Amino acid sequence: MSWMLDVKDLTPIAIGASILGTGGGGDPYIGQLMAQRALEQYGPVKVLEADDIAGDDWVIAIAGMGAPTVLFEKPPHGDEPVKAFLRLEKHLGISNAIPCPIEAGGINSLIPIVVAAQLNRPIVDADGMGRAFPELYMVTFHVGGLNGTPACIANEFGDYVILDHLHDNLAFEWIARGVTIRMGGHAFVAQFPMLGDQLRNNAIRGTLSLAWRIGQAVINAQENHLDPISAIASVTAYADYGEGRIIFRGKIAEVNRRTIEGFARGTMRIEGMEEFKNRSLIIDFQNENLIARDDEGKHVATVPDLITVLDSTTGQAITTERLRYGQRVAVIVIPAPSIMKTPEALKIWGPRGFRYDFDYVPL
Amino acid sequence: MSWMLDVKDLTPIAIGASILGTGGGGDPYIGQLMAQRALEQYGPVKVLEADDIAGDDWVIAIAGMGAPTVLFEKPPHGDEPVKAFLRLEKHLGISNAIPCPIEAGGINSLIPIVVAAQLNRPIVDADGMGRAFPELYMVTFHVGGLNGTPACIANEFGDYVILDHLHDNLAFEWIARGVTIRMGGHAFVAQFPMLGDQLRNNAIRGTLSLAWRIGQAVINAQENHLDPISAIASVTAYADYGEGRIIFRGKIAEVNRRTIEGFARGTMRIEGMEEFKNRSLIIDFQNENLIARDDEGKHVATVPDLITVLDSTTGQAITTERLRYGQRVAVIVIPAPSIMKTPEALKIWGPRGFRYDFDYVPL
Repeated sequence: MSWMLDVKDLTPIAIGASILGTGGGGDPYIGQLMAQRALEQYGPVKVLEADDIAGDDWVIAIAGMGAPTVLFEKPPHGDEPVKAFLRLEKHLGISNAIPCPIEAGGINSLIPIVVAAQLNRPIVDADGMGRAFPELYMVTFHVGGLNGTPACIANEFGDYVILDHLHDNLAFEWIARGVTIRMGGHAFVAQFPMLGDQLRNNAIRGTLSLAWRIGQAVINAQENHLDPISAIASVTAYADYGEGRIIFRGKIAEVNRRTIEGFARGTMRIEGMEEFKNRSLIIDFQNENLIARDDEGKHVATVPDLITVLDSTTGQAITTERLRYGQRVAVIVIPAPSIMKTPEALKIWGPRGFRYDFDYVPL
Repeated sequence: MSWMLDVKDLTPIAIGASILGTGGGGDPYIGQLMAQRALEQYGPVKVLEADDIAGDDWVIAIAGMGAPTVLFEKPPHGDEPVKAFLRLEKHLGISNAIPCPIEAGGINSLIPIVVAAQLNRPIVDADGMGRAFPELYMVTFHVGGLNGTPACIANEFGDYVILDHLHDNLAFEWIARGVTIRMGGHAFVAQFPMLGDQLRNNAIRGTLSLAWRIGQAVINAQENHLDPISAIASVTAYADYGEGRIIFRGKIAEVNRRTIEGFARGTMRIEGMEEFKNRSLIIDFQNENLIARDDEGKHVATVPDLITVLDSTTGQAITTERLRYGQRVAVIVIPAPSIMKTPEALKIWGPRGFRYDFDYVPL
């Protein structure tokens, strides 16, 4: 079942994608502006399910890479993503590839919409992370054996760097990150060119629709003076995701954050309120929230399940760079779909993939 | 006039190129081994003068980039340069390009010989620096308005990164350096694709032959127990270079060296001996020797003239990473050709190009 995505859908998608972003993905504001301008100029975009894609259609993932905060210092012209996308098509000798998000989270849920609108092409309702993750190889496409290269990086100067072949996806992440840093901290990357069959076998499905559902639930609750947190929990059981559970409500009591090699790493401590009074929740993050543990060190939730810190009044996600002492928050956990919890997948983004010495703890 | 370059020519070229390398360019040992193997397997290489190249022939500069010392830790397979070269040809949709050195100095005088032998093509007796310089944009091709991109970087893992377009050559240096660092500190770069006419208008001519002449003079002097330093000075007046002058003899008394952003920066002080007794010479370097000044701070010689520190017994160049207290040395200065001393060229590699606040001082 396909649907048409128009300007009015961007706010719910931006709100929902930030919640799926689990603290990462960055502020979607610039991405939303870019998508709005593209949709106003070129009209709505058709959203296809993975099963609507033909086996021999080409699909290319398109995303921003680097620190989203840099986008506020050097806003893009708006044509960087489409330039990266078309340059990669030319390099591959293909045409009419369908844009696909690499992750569900913040700005990167919106960038493929920009490209689809500008090229008058559909977009796939599926991606490679089902949430946000900090590194490029943390995608189901990698788990499924696909190589991120050939890829093309483009920036606001009209520069193009083509990663023609890198021997594995860790090298792809390493070199692409290096180029992005030297391009000033943010660039756009067209990557993981694949056929429709490869997409269908490997992508996490329905993520754009799920973002829209979550965002729309937040907006409805806000408009009707209902609790947005409960509204979010009730709509997350979609596609293969589980129903969200509110694991904590409280006040941010402590945030330790360091920027290390381009990542925001740290921990936060939340002091409980209401039914969670006299208890604490500690969350570790690396751009995204990774591990939630209670006062006694017991792991309450871990990657790849989606741990999101929400503003308790508005229901909107608080990204890790915006955490502040005193914020009233709720913590929701959305069980990741089963494709993200195979043994191969957990090696990449289970706790051990982030150098913890324990295994994934199901909610 | 063309000539055939065979295995027996490699030692004189390596010795002479190190002297033209003015302290940089690295130990040519690995490059010489690679060239020897290629010439033994594929036979001698024809060396063409710039005027022998047709106006519509393609020429591509091929060189190692990064820290030559890394090559001893991860020796190349030997086919990395030719892979970078051929991948760039394919990207450009051309064939039969002629390899050209980017600089005259150490290993990079030998790498184009490896590629020419493996592809059974000639090599051009000309390059873009006429000596060694630390950064990629410090080439006459840049002074002449050519862009270093498209370029292709290859390494020992079979990785290829294509710098398809960068908006200027400073960005080219910056991004290529970043990729090279992330590839482990050394890689091979095919760059500055140009037509024969562009080569003829911009290259520094006769540099491979000059390296051979200098190296052969050193070998002859060694074999006949003559002073190699004087022998070098007498053969440098070739092509458009001036006659070399011995500006100092003495003993290394002090070396200050720091590795900053991949460059060896520092100064050395030489205490005079023989006719230079009771005097000192101070030389600043950034990989290559840049400025020589006397006790009173007077500039005796500056870039782009070639300032080389030689072992006073053997006449061989001492690269800046091999400088040690107590070495007996002679310092020779070879006047750079006029194409390197135009106002535009001096902006790039005169003293001000290295952030000194004074102008080029002719010898």
